[in-house]
Amino acid sequence: MTADDHKALCVLGTGLIGGSLLRAATAAGYTGWGYNRSAPGVAAARATGFDVTGDLPAALRRAADTDALIVVAVPMPAVNPMLDAIAQYAPQCPLTDVVSVKSPVAAAVRRYGLEERYVGGHPMAGTAESGWQATVPDLFRDAAWAVGVDPGTDPGTWTRVTRLALDCGAVAVPVIASEHDRAVARISHLPHVLAEALAVAGARGGDLALGLAAGSFRDGTRVAATSPDLVRAICEPNSDALLAVLDETLAALTEARESLSEHTSLDELTATGHAARQRYESARRWEITDIDPGAPGWLEKLQEAGRAGGVITRLDTRPEPD
Amino acid sequence: MTADDHKALCVLGTGLIGGSLLRAATAAGYTGWGYNRSAPGVAAARATGFDVTGDLPAALRRAADTDALIVVAVPMPAVNPMLDAIAQYAPQCPLTDVVSVKSPVAAAVRRYGLEERYVGGHPMAGTAESGWQATVPDLFRDAAWAVGVDPGTDPGTWTRVTRLALDCGAVAVPVIASEHDRAVARISHLPHVLAEALAVAGARGGDLALGLAAGSFRDGTRVAATSPDLVRAICEPNSDALLAVLDETLAALTEARESLSEHTSLDELTATGHAARQRYESARRWEITDIDPGAPGWLEKLQEAGRAGGVITRLDTRPEPD
Repeated sequence: MTADDHKALCVLGTGLIGGSLLRAATAAGYTGWGYNRSAPGVAAARATGFDVTGDLPAALRRAADTDALIVVAVPMPAVNPMLDAIAQYAPQCPLTDVVSVKSPVAAAVRRYGLEERYVGGHPMAGTAESGWQATVPDLFRDAAWAVGVDPGTDPGTWTRVTRLALDCGAVAVPVIASEHDRAVARISHLPHVLAEALAVAGARGGDLALGLAAGSFRDGTRVAATSPDLVRAICEPNSDALLAVLDETLAALTEARESLSEHTSLDELTATGHAARQRYESARRWEITDIDPGAPGWLEKLQEAGRAGGVITRLDTRPEPD
Repeated sequence: MTADDHKALCVLGTGLIGGSLLRAATAAGYTGWGYNRSAPGVAAARATGFDVTGDLPAALRRAADTDALIVVAVPMPAVNPMLDAIAQYAPQCPLTDVVSVKSPVAAAVRRYGLEERYVGGHPMAGTAESGWQATVPDLFRDAAWAVGVDPGTDPGTWTRVTRLALDCGAVAVPVIASEHDRAVARISHLPHVLAEALAVAGARGGDLALGLAAGSFRDGTRVAATSPDLVRAICEPNSDALLAVLDETLAALTEARESLSEHTSLDELTATGHAARQRYESARRWEITDIDPGAPGWLEKLQEAGRAGGVITRLDTRPEPD
């Protein structure tokens, strides 16, 4: 068995993302097991036939014994205790995560001395639901799954993490931590903030306004149904990047407000907004090929490709050199 | 035949809303015909068997001859020429509209001396599509359809307009023009403005950000796909109410920005936003009963009921008095 097809997997946290990952990977032939903090969460997973335990040291010892890929699948505020246990029980295992920000996780990983075999990950998938009962094996089908390509990335770990993303049905997007965090501030964290503000504005209109609300309000506020604690756990660790894009957006909205007030016109905002949405709708994924983990310049090449919208859809077994 | 079951209908403008209305009303047994300005629009409607003409005077003379209910179904910037023609060819007909704002339409109706038999309407339904090819007969199924109950409303016209909304599958929400306009600023026009701003912020993140974008961005920017001209035609005529709620929202977002900057916290925004979305999700329509158009206080009673989230789902034929 080579590192590439090593399919032992230990998932720490079996909520919506971690639990769906365990389901997807198991369906794809992995030997997967998990840890969950809550007894009802453990019971729910076990009742559906999954190997989930409340005994964190046991889960990690098994990972150490089998060189399993460990996936940290808890919200950012719960990451440190997981890393602490990994450093104690399975410090040599390859390590990834599915947390919504990457720089803060990478910093924590370094504090625990686990950076050598760490490659960050972030599947761009989810629903407003949470917990094992919300898990589904096809949550990642065709989703983008960010995979770290920061300087110093270990090729073997990177290959295992990327293969996991592909095996779960996703496409892998190579991206360094800081660029990931700035990007998700724009397309994930700002949407949450605006959805909350829109929900508040609608409800302040009372029963009449809520009774007249149709598709634009329903869709615009959908993610405000996510639990406030989870939204905070997603957005607050990325506050620097979120503040930057929030300021940019406040400036754009203030400009639109002035244009509406002085010229009764939303010309600029609607023209740029429509063009932006058109660009989003017409964006096409293109496939990154000739991937050679560990070859000179392989990380820079992947960083560049990710920035330009490239995705990884398969990792070929390269022919042996003559 | 009483005024109540008079089912002659003249629709001016057969785009998404007007065309779908013509389809829905025809399916419900109305004798309906329409006018459209564009020759291709006329041809598309006629090709599917609908009685649509490019001859506005002819359409209106037929309305005058049959005491048809006239529906103005063009965007606000195109309303005046329609009212001008109605004043010339069919000034005695009952008149309604499906324009997204109500006070500016009512003011225009008064300028043309047509207020006596005018009752404003606004079905809360639509898609990002437009034109006859986008029309569907069930667009209004279970939608809220605002129907005017301003002081001085003519009971007979009100009954015909309300019955049209019900016959198209909608529920009628009684509301005066100014309250309607303030409510839709919150739940329709603000969503458009925020969607445009979100789309712009996402696209500024380039191919990487757009490639990572998932459900929250897709849903939050959906209505930015609407044509800029149509968004402007919807929002700009309601600029006073939109400015007020935009200022309120800018203040809330600025407060959240300060909290994030100073305390790395989105506690307040996420708590109020989540509660607001919960209130929206749990809002239940309740049925307004004992409606007696023309009886003393009937308009005040309906205004009150609409404010409290009441809807009209049927208009009973009241028993004759002994």
